[in-house]
Amino acid sequence: MKEVGIGIIGVGNIGSYLFKEINSIKSEINKNLGFKIKIIGVAVKNPKKKRAIKINKNLFYKNPIELVKNNKVNILFELIGMSDGISKKVVEIALINKKHVITANKALISKHGEYLSKLAEKNNVNLEFEASVGGGIPVLRTIKDGLATNKISKVVGILNGTSNYILTEMEKTRKSFKEVLLKSQKLGLAEANPKFDLDGSDVLSKVKILSSLAFKKQISLKKCLKEGIENIDLKDIEMARNLNLRIKLLGITEIINNSLFERVHTSLVPDDNYIANIDGAMNAVILKGVPVGESVLQGEGAGPGPTSSALMSDLLSILRGNIKYPFGIPNNKRYKIKTYNEDLYENSLYLRLEVNDKPGVLSDLTKILAKYKISIQRLIQIPDKKNKKATIVIITHKCLEKNSISCINNLNKNKNVLKNPVLIRLFA
Amino acid sequence: MKEVGIGIIGVGNIGSYLFKEINSIKSEINKNLGFKIKIIGVAVKNPKKKRAIKINKNLFYKNPIELVKNNKVNILFELIGMSDGISKKVVEIALINKKHVITANKALISKHGEYLSKLAEKNNVNLEFEASVGGGIPVLRTIKDGLATNKISKVVGILNGTSNYILTEMEKTRKSFKEVLLKSQKLGLAEANPKFDLDGSDVLSKVKILSSLAFKKQISLKKCLKEGIENIDLKDIEMARNLNLRIKLLGITEIINNSLFERVHTSLVPDDNYIANIDGAMNAVILKGVPVGESVLQGEGAGPGPTSSALMSDLLSILRGNIKYPFGIPNNKRYKIKTYNEDLYENSLYLRLEVNDKPGVLSDLTKILAKYKISIQRLIQIPDKKNKKATIVIITHKCLEKNSISCINNLNKNKNVLKNPVLIRLFA
Repeated sequence: MKEVGIGIIGVGNIGSYLFKEINSIKSEINKNLGFKIKIIGVAVKNPKKKRAIKINKNLFYKNPIELVKNNKVNILFELIGMSDGISKKVVEIALINKKHVITANKALISKHGEYLSKLAEKNNVNLEFEASVGGGIPVLRTIKDGLATNKISKVVGILNGTSNYILTEMEKTRKSFKEVLLKSQKLGLAEANPKFDLDGSDVLSKVKILSSLAFKKQISLKKCLKEGIENIDLKDIEMARNLNLRIKLLGITEIINNSLFERVHTSLVPDDNYIANIDGAMNAVILKGVPVGESVLQGEGAGPGPTSSALMSDLLSILRGNIKYPFGIPNNKRYKIKTYNEDLYENSLYLRLEVNDKPGVLSDLTKILAKYKISIQRLIQIPDKKNKKATIVIITHKCLEKNSISCINNLNKNKNVLKNPVLIRLFA
Repeated sequence: MKEVGIGIIGVGNIGSYLFKEINSIKSEINKNLGFKIKIIGVAVKNPKKKRAIKINKNLFYKNPIELVKNNKVNILFELIGMSDGISKKVVEIALINKKHVITANKALISKHGEYLSKLAEKNNVNLEFEASVGGGIPVLRTIKDGLATNKISKVVGILNGTSNYILTEMEKTRKSFKEVLLKSQKLGLAEANPKFDLDGSDVLSKVKILSSLAFKKQISLKKCLKEGIENIDLKDIEMARNLNLRIKLLGITEIINNSLFERVHTSLVPDDNYIANIDGAMNAVILKGVPVGESVLQGEGAGPGPTSSALMSDLLSILRGNIKYPFGIPNNKRYKIKTYNEDLYENSLYLRLEVNDKPGVLSDLTKILAKYKISIQRLIQIPDKKNKKATIVIITHKCLEKNSISCINNLNKNKNVLKNPVLIRLFA
């Protein structure tokens, strides 16, 4: 029986659940795999904070570094979640001290994954981060193992439960973004500061991790198209409904002409499409590969249960002595890829403009569109006679990203355009 | 660079594709993992048969045993597909001679998986069979690794592409079972002898493999509820449509009161349910587990490409030195489970009866139902006045499996019932 000591840094919702989960199934793991698992300690900022579980106070470490360096700790769970600072530090120290690391931290991995994975390989320990993408869906392991030899060309995902919940709830209850956000926060589905969930940052981190695994390439740190759901209004959701479309925040990564095109933005998806019907806090990932064809993985994308499931799968993988390369293949075999010039991206657009309803306005706006070679497929005008205003919704034919951004900027300057135009890309 | 010799037994559609696939990506695997992969030989019945690929005739072995025993062969692919006979023999000999085995053979694994996995463990080699269930969907690996520590309570799947294609095609084209079957055979989607695909046997083999992995228990060889799609008529498909339901052949396995309940039968699924919309030759598996919640995996269920993807994932797993237990945990830790008494299974039924249209018939039939405590939720009678016949469709409230089987037998004896009644269970 080999003793395995575990340290946990950060005991919030996830950490508490994991602590309970490890204790509840360690005897089964011990029996099946011949180990003696023990939680050596947990590092927390405030040991006196009320927690859902009881933790023996002898286990508390105020100084996380002390816990990491404890000789009895073989495997470290990092559950603080910062992209830098103490999160990066404890992972670094653990790897250098030849301890396996398991983390749910997408911010850390998407930013420092290259450096940390080299460190892990050099020290011949695992760095596992299944829980960083897709909650309980074992999507990283599926790419690394289950679809290992496939040539994957595209990955599309609903990767943020909070924003997907808000969009679904707005449609269902016909309540405003603000009202639904407040409700989500009360239910614990959105954080007190939900910025990164709503502005696409969280999804982008996940996309960067997915890309590097799916395409066997280094993590790109280049800036790329990133938009969130903060500007989506109930009007847009209802308009989409009338057009048999649904608004989804998608993370998309693909290889176009040997270049990497990563992006996060809201998309209008036909309502008979699979991905249009992933509701609430669910996540889904669609992978296109050869020879496997199209594969879909769907499951609960967040919360302590699904996250623990992913963290525990990493633990099992380490205990079984499975592959040690954090990104599936050795770091020196992972190539650098050039970035696709997103100006060249062609797409149909949904534009919503709030304007003054007076003669000549529509003509001015369509002139601006024409200037940027954006041709109109459909135009819907909804008057608000009382206020002498109107809502104009335009669905365009395919146009260049570069042009659509310039066009929006130009529209924004027009004195009869009363608010920032809303732009949603049509799913293709 | 470690040399790895590969032998392939059986070079039909799958074997040919795999042969090509190994040769096309071996240099990448060699580069990434430091191996020197080589196909040592292929065993075929008829070396002169026309194949989609060219194989150097020096590679052909007429005697598969000779290939298996070749000292240079380290990993054997068994792609013949019989539950016994030469398939079993080559796998046995390979394992005894300490060679890893990869197979797509669900018939073999579901029947002899216990014996063969013990043999593999004893000889410290891998026995891998990802391709035996769900085609390209890495569902076995997901259960063994990605969801390793979850307590899975139920697995539901569309696991046979041929029958799902036929049901979808019947609905789409409004053609008869026979016509669609013929078309499927022409397209290569159904075999010349499609018996095991259509009568539920193929699905049952897969269910038995899924059960043993999901519930960490031994494979059950007990007889269980197994029905196929041979009796489904276009009438049923259209009737289902009118009721906003769709007919699917499902493989279901679950634990009820610590007993194992495995079954294969057609089910009427509400058309807004995810599983109702898995069309054509696609496969899908839904897993319910704690703490992960509900997970869905979907992908192409058959064909050389997806099957090769699964076979290659097994090859990679072996090359990486991943876990050796064929069923995820050591054989001596996999428990024996009692079988659920399926007589006690309660379900709503769809019954279609073809009857003589004359006074008293309906009253006779409903009396028989009442005798077996089957109460009617809905009854639809469609007269065929010209022939003095009628079709009666009955949706029942929940009733005991034991009673419904006796009831069907009794109805069958009634002289006014003209054909075997059709029974489809409602999805619950």
